[in-house]
Amino acid sequence: MARNTNLRWRLPLICLLLQVTMVVLFGVFVRYHPDADASWREEKKRKNISSDLENEFYYRYPSFQDVHVMVFVGFGFLMTFLQRYGFGAVGFNFLLAAFGIQWAVLVQGWFHHLDSHLINADFCVASVCVAFGALLGKVSPVQLLIMTLFQVTLFTVNEYILLDLLEVKDAGGSMTIHTFGAYFGLTVTWILYRRNLEQSKQRQTSVYHSDLFAMIGTLFLWMYWPSFNSAISSHGDAQHRAALNTYCSLAASVLTSVALSSALHKKGKLDMVHIQNATLAGGVGVGTAAEMMLTPYGALIVGFFCGSISTLGFMFLSPFLESRLRIQDTCGIHNLHGIPGVLGGIVGAVTAAFARPDIYGQHGSQGKFQMFGLLLSLAMALVGGIMVGLILRLPFWGQAADENCFDDEVYWEVSSTDPSRDSGTPTHTA
Amino acid sequence: MARNTNLRWRLPLICLLLQVTMVVLFGVFVRYHPDADASWREEKKRKNISSDLENEFYYRYPSFQDVHVMVFVGFGFLMTFLQRYGFGAVGFNFLLAAFGIQWAVLVQGWFHHLDSHLINADFCVASVCVAFGALLGKVSPVQLLIMTLFQVTLFTVNEYILLDLLEVKDAGGSMTIHTFGAYFGLTVTWILYRRNLEQSKQRQTSVYHSDLFAMIGTLFLWMYWPSFNSAISSHGDAQHRAALNTYCSLAASVLTSVALSSALHKKGKLDMVHIQNATLAGGVGVGTAAEMMLTPYGALIVGFFCGSISTLGFMFLSPFLESRLRIQDTCGIHNLHGIPGVLGGIVGAVTAAFARPDIYGQHGSQGKFQMFGLLLSLAMALVGGIMVGLILRLPFWGQAADENCFDDEVYWEVSSTDPSRDSGTPTHTA
Amino acid sequence: MARNTNLRWRLPLICLLLQVTMVVLFGVFVRYHPDADASWREEKKRKNISSDLENEFYYRYPSFQDVHVMVFVGFGFLMTFLQRYGFGAVGFNFLLAAFGIQWAVLVQGWFHHLDSHLINADFCVASVCVAFGALLGKVSPVQLLIMTLFQVTLFTVNEYILLDLLEVKDAGGSMTIHTFGAYFGLTVTWILYRRNLEQSKQRQTSVYHSDLFAMIGTLFLWMYWPSFNSAISSHGDAQHRAALNTYCSLAASVLTSVALSSALHKKGKLDMVHIQNATLAGGVGVGTAAEMMLTPYGALIVGFFCGSISTLGFMFLSPFLESRLRIQDTCGIHNLHGIPGVLGGIVGAVTAAFARPDIYGQHGSQGKFQMFGLLLSLAMALVGGIMVGLILRLPFWGQAADENCFDDEVYWEVSSTDPSRDSGTPTHTA
Repeated sequence: MARNTNLRWRLPLICLLLQVTMVVLFGVFVRYHPDADASWREEKKRKNISSDLENEFYYRYPSFQDVHVMVFVGFGFLMTFLQRYGFGAVGFNFLLAAFGIQWAVLVQGWFHHLDSHLINADFCVASVCVAFGALLGKVSPVQLLIMTLFQVTLFTVNEYILLDLLEVKDAGGSMTIHTFGAYFGLTVTWILYRRNLEQSKQRQTSVYHSDLFAMIGTLFLWMYWPSFNSAISSHGDAQHRAALNTYCSLAASVLTSVALSSALHKKGKLDMVHIQNATLAGGVGVGTAAEMMLTPYGALIVGFFCGSISTLGFMFLSPFLESRLRIQDTCGIHNLHGIPGVLGGIVGAVTAAFARPDIYGQHGSQGKFQMFGLLLSLAMALVGGIMVGLILRLPFWGQAADENCFDDEVYWEVSSTDPSRDSGTPTHTA
Repeated sequence: MARNTNLRWRLPLICLLLQVTMVVLFGVFVRYHPDADASWREEKKRKNISSDLENEFYYRYPSFQDVHVMVFVGFGFLMTFLQRYGFGAVGFNFLLAAFGIQWAVLVQGWFHHLDSHLINADFCVASVCVAFGALLGKVSPVQLLIMTLFQVTLFTVNEYILLDLLEVKDAGGSMTIHTFGAYFGLTVTWILYRRNLEQSKQRQTSVYHSDLFAMIGTLFLWMYWPSFNSAISSHGDAQHRAALNTYCSLAASVLTSVALSSALHKKGKLDMVHIQNATLAGGVGVGTAAEMMLTPYGALIVGFFCGSISTLGFMFLSPFLESRLRIQDTCGIHNLHGIPGVLGGIVGAVTAAFARPDIYGQHGSQGKFQMFGLLLSLAMALVGGIMVGLILRLPFWGQAADENCFDDEVYWEVSSTDPSRDSGTPTHTA
Repeated sequence: MARNTNLRWRLPLICLLLQVTMVVLFGVFVRYHPDADASWREEKKRKNISSDLENEFYYRYPSFQDVHVMVFVGFGFLMTFLQRYGFGAVGFNFLLAAFGIQWAVLVQGWFHHLDSHLINADFCVASVCVAFGALLGKVSPVQLLIMTLFQVTLFTVNEYILLDLLEVKDAGGSMTIHTFGAYFGLTVTWILYRRNLEQSKQRQTSVYHSDLFAMIGTLFLWMYWPSFNSAISSHGDAQHRAALNTYCSLAASVLTSVALSSALHKKGKLDMVHIQNATLAGGVGVGTAAEMMLTPYGALIVGFFCGSISTLGFMFLSPFLESRLRIQDTCGIHNLHGIPGVLGGIVGAVTAAFARPDIYGQHGSQGKFQMFGLLLSLAMALVGGIMVGLILRLPFWGQAADENCFDDEVYWEVSSTDPSRDSGTPTHTA
């Protein structure tokens, strides 16, 4: 079935509409934080609140930049592994994140006054990047912008309930970012099921250099994940500890990913898909408990299991989900963010439950609240995903036909003189 | 016309000459700043000036490193989009920047004592990288080193007049870096006009993976631009605000670049050239006003227009400049740095003019001085560009013939067994 | 001779064994530093030791992250220059570093209590990455893990003797990291000499884009080297100075590398091997003296000679080492880390010997201790390298035959539909 994928009016219109709305809403709602406002200088001086060198900027900005790199380079390049969808991977991720951070600053400001808006905006967008991973190659940029609009809103509502109402701990977002983002994206892709997607299967593989581009994404995600999980922790030992625990967990998941990848191949060869993805599962799994007194060896154990389970998921669960449950998960986000996210929520609940009361407040019931927060994130993802999926199923968003998925030529001007253009599909047999 | 592009004596000679000169001049003129000098320890202790933890290092170094990444990876990889000029893009950028930072430390030290020399050296070199964008693929490394020598000097003179004499504000360098760098480079390329450049046109396009390499440059420039525009601002709220405003402006220019790119293509397809470049225009446009009380929505508006105008420039202005004014601008720096730089200077003047007097000092005439600074930067770029262009036109700098432009094989050893070597130019028809 | 390179049992087993051991040993030996431990909060408050904003985290973490990027992206991508060994370069580097940092945290903790364990762990692993450069393409991941196990241990013993017993200065590790790492790796590759390696020569070259991938590694190493050499310096002017000196030295080595590379080619063309490697020699050469009062022009001189000598080494010494001494050094680590490391040790000794006594303590004998430390590092590398080399020569570690070196298909699942798979070896002649 041929579809109209010409976005000449639709994409510009939605971009301009959203951007003009952002300008207006920022004009009405967004003001500088006192730490960034010149008019407060006098007052601050009078009240002797803080010196310029104690500006939050100096204590949060390096972490913020690391998280920023993860969102734009990390997620963007991680998805460039497909042979002919590199522009879409890195370009659409750029587009949705640039819109998402603006919208997140607004929505987050309405719901709660967090000290470090911009890091929270990046966190919020990270959950959209996760969901994008399931849809990669199968949706139009118009659909992605609409999804971002809704997902950022739902993310913030969910986060508000968890962090502000239930007082759940989730510094690195195992529940709010990864579990929510993954199951939201999986639900959307389930609703958008494409019956004849195997007609695009020849493009759903990597080529040698596309796998190397993806490793740029993997490594920046892996290296900066300690910054991610510690970025909004309380100053001092909590932040320090969150970085340390994440570092340990990530290191362990590299070894178990390699072990399982080799063990599951009949000739013992490693698969780049596992190295690109499962090595990161340790960062997801330790997201909730990172700032807790998890202990370094506890973090290693979390990474050990996350790396293993994630690799097993790529081998056995993904094919099952696709064939039986009709969930077409392009990047395998269920294995990188879904399962490790749920595990991370549980690890957080257990760690909190066993914590000494003098560390995490009086109530021993923290563990129960954590579990409840996890279930709520899952429910929010499912209900929200169905709703948004149904909207995205409307036929006029410029989505490609099943036989044209995973192909940059649908939405990008690709040079006709590009010698690698026809690569993978030999066109002459004589 | 065949030309002698063998640089065997010329390139080593100029490199060694310049480097020996640097050693001698550093020996005569460059001393450690007290913050980096062990001999001051006693004196500092006696005077109780500052503790080691208040060393400027801890407040400037993270920003410095971000700027450093922009100069070497950002500009270097942004220019790798050409199919056969990746080595020249990233390698010559590396060479000119490594020389430029040394020369800039010296010249800047002669003209004014700035607290953060190394960031200023990188800023200075950034304006040379901008100019290089117009000349990419058409000049020899010898020419680039000579241009760097002169441009760094002129940059510093111009900056000195603007910042020290006129007391103009230009934290992120819309005028001193982008406007000056762009119009300097455009003037040089105008003087170096190549009549038969269309003989190299088949290499003046990208291939699939070269466009992905360029996106590495784009993203690191985009992500770290808030650090660039805030790197030398006063500590505290000014620096915080400069980062925030830049972040907002950049986000807006992504959406309008995408909108215009799609709207201007007959099938609504996006063009990587726009995504790689116009998305950054917001960072240029907010360079002067970033640390001012521009307000977040003001920053969004600046980004909105810069992204749009930059994309329009790539579509309509660049072809016009090339065909009518004989300005051959390889990377389209006029659209990314030229126009947005001028706009940024004007935005800064307007913002300063409307500022409350208690914020920017007494004189309401700041706006006029800002405009004057902008015009002076343009004049300096034109006069300097003509002068340097005439020097570079001398026939013995090893420049390639018109039919050998945009080709790494002129100055680089490219493996003869490289299978992609002849890509794009089929050599057999049978 | 065909060899069994199927690692299906060996690689998983060693990975899991090592990781389980790490969990157990971390459980027994590793505790949070007080700066990362919540239980110390009360005590710190009582003793009024430090505020949360004075946590070491804020003063070391940005440098740590830069070093982290150097180890994983820097070394990883630097080695992707081979046309068909990109997966092995970046993937095995990832694996050995992820294991190495865990083991290093443990071993370093046993030998000395350093304040900044994680930076030291990365330093330790950097010396393994250096050694890997000599072995690239010729060893199995099992061999690499075994080598990491031993080399990290030997590194720590050597470092303990130098820094703690001899009180040698070596902030940036010219001796402990580069000299030790390089000569250890060279000794191992000498022991593992492959008689028929020329049967793999056709794959021991780069292709166009693999050289660009390698430049990502080069640039991140180059940009962040000032952070590397200053990462563990004392707070204040020493750290500031170490970054400055490294910056100067690196800049100079770029110009002399380019000069020599061009001068040594009969047509004056530049060689990417030199640009990728010799430009970094300045960072190695200034490693020991970086935090000393070397003066900026002293740093330039060091970089001047390191860049030159390194390039000369690639031209003249590497072929000699391979043909006469049977040292097959894939990445030329002798030129980038070996010679510049030794030079760096000597520069440090000379600088320390001429230092004013009030700066480096009373004893004028510091210079002698420095030289002794250098010789000890060399001896340790040779003895350790022979020992480890003999272990790795055992025939059951899954190493490839001489004709299958430098080929990812031995240990990686490489897509059979990859169009570039057979590149470089035309398979039809009709």
